Amino acid sequence: MFGRVAIIGIGLIGSSIARAVRARGLARHIAIADRSADHLERAEALGLGDSLHAGADAAVVGADLVVACVPVGACEEVAKLIARDLAPGAIVTDVGSVKGSVVRQMRPHLPAGIHFIPGHPVAGTEFSGPDAGFADLFDGRWCILTPPSDDVDADAIARLTAFWRALGSNVECMTPDHHDLVLAITSHVPHLIAYNIVGTADDLEAVTQSEVMKFSAGGFRDFTRIAASDPTMWRDVFLHNREAVIEVLGRFTEDLIALQRHIRWGEGDDLFELFTRTRAIRRGIIGMGQETPAADFGRRKG
Amino acid sequence: MFGRVAIIGIGLIGSSIARAVRARGLARHIAIADRSADHLERAEALGLGDSLHAGADAAVVGADLVVACVPVGACEEVAKLIARDLAPGAIVTDVGSVKGSVVRQMRPHLPAGIHFIPGHPVAGTEFSGPDAGFADLFDGRWCILTPPSDDVDADAIARLTAFWRALGSNVECMTPDHHDLVLAITSHVPHLIAYNIVGTADDLEAVTQSEVMKFSAGGFRDFTRIAASDPTMWRDVFLHNREAVIEVLGRFTEDLIALQRHIRWGEGDDLFELFTRTRAIRRGIIGMGQETPAADFGRRKG
Repeated sequence: MFGRVAIIGIGLIGSSIARAVRARGLARHIAIADRSADHLERAEALGLGDSLHAGADAAVVGADLVVACVPVGACEEVAKLIARDLAPGAIVTDVGSVKGSVVRQMRPHLPAGIHFIPGHPVAGTEFSGPDAGFADLFDGRWCILTPPSDDVDADAIARLTAFWRALGSNVECMTPDHHDLVLAITSHVPHLIAYNIVGTADDLEAVTQSEVMKFSAGGFRDFTRIAASDPTMWRDVFLHNREAVIEVLGRFTEDLIALQRHIRWGEGDDLFELFTRTRAIRRGIIGMGQETPAADFGRRKG
Repeated sequence: MFGRVAIIGIGLIGSSIARAVRARGLARHIAIADRSADHLERAEALGLGDSLHAGADAAVVGADLVVACVPVGACEEVAKLIARDLAPGAIVTDVGSVKGSVVRQMRPHLPAGIHFIPGHPVAGTEFSGPDAGFADLFDGRWCILTPPSDDVDADAIARLTAFWRALGSNVECMTPDHHDLVLAITSHVPHLIAYNIVGTADDLEAVTQSEVMKFSAGGFRDFTRIAASDPTMWRDVFLHNREAVIEVLGRFTEDLIALQRHIRWGEGDDLFELFTRTRAIRRGIIGMGQETPAADFGRRKG
């Protein structure tokens, strides 16, 4: 499918892509760059790439697909570093959870003749680093592509779409700004409130950490899993999707304060109405085949 | 272990207890009461009990263990209904997620000579009804017992403790008020914010329900599972644990607004500090053996 794929950053996502490209035979050569010597060493030990590079610039030489798998805040630096060495006609993409900021960071530095198509595979675990990746991470997941303007080469979009489909993903295109709003509600704000409640629990003087852990099966434990996600990646997500996160967070807080008022005044019917509505939404997700009741059972019991 | 166990309410928890008591041979007779004719019919079809009763009073006759498995708001009614028919020396317990209110609702109605020991198995799924239960729901979970005063018979506590251990649970005793604070942070407020964010998402005009569902793997999906829990049960939890929930919610909101301010002002170090701290707490939970990294992997991929 591609001659040389350059993967910049060999963490959870980068190493999963490397494994999947290898397993599914999608490139003749996998070039890996990472500025962490530890990561490169692990990548070598795990046999993730055909060539390993300390600098992103060396990795992209001759590559027809370049995938930046770095925290959102590092994208401008990567663009500056690789700009001179990109092959004409190469596709440059990324995997960041924020897209408007990535466009603003990278596009000004990329030369003409490069197909720049930011992307976001909506997949992950709370683990990090080259050892945490696995080849089927993207299987059955969605990957969102956000061509930054209408004049992006349709053939390049089709090739990148085919690449993600070959990794097992469904692909959808939307604008960077719409992506950032959708992800603010489906991912960024959920992560923020998970981080927040785990912090609130940690600060409660009257409840010990041991009690919080022991009795976490009542709901809290699901939040701790989300709140164990990579701190650097998530710091960058919030700093770089500030507007959409603050907008959604404002609505969330407004709604929460209304709920608190219902509780204070004993307005059970209003609580019941909301809880019934949210249950129906869950059934919609199960109905879409994104999750099965049986899998759920396993989860709650696990 | 017991002669006759009466289970009042044959929903998810009641039917799981019935199945576990049968599977582990913990009683000679299982008496089931439920005011829903549908539930009784399902209980009969599933063979959950030895006798089925429309009224809780009939079920408790001759029972040495009575377990109320009803929404917290129905406990007073159950206590009034069974009071006259309880056998002297019987243990009366429940499974509600709130304990102070259950004590206030039930104790005044129970006759002398009854051992009243409220309980709370910290286990569940988002499914409801007699069909949703399974025998190993309590396996490896915690059950909290809250004797309402210091003069509860130690032998009765020991017998109820042995019962829950036989169902596979770890048992811990604490006061009803402390229980309600611990569960406010580990369960009640997590549920409330899960319900809340699913509602907020549903109300966002600029994002379609289909988009929310498709891209829910980024964190939101875990919240929808929690927000699919039984509406009646949870309405009652919030109405009956009002003080602790509002106290914890106040701290949560305060912390969230501080986080929002960090995002607005680009204070990345403060975000990073919190996200690092919460990650360590998660590792503590895994370290306690409450969950394994491998099981997690399965979950996130599932």
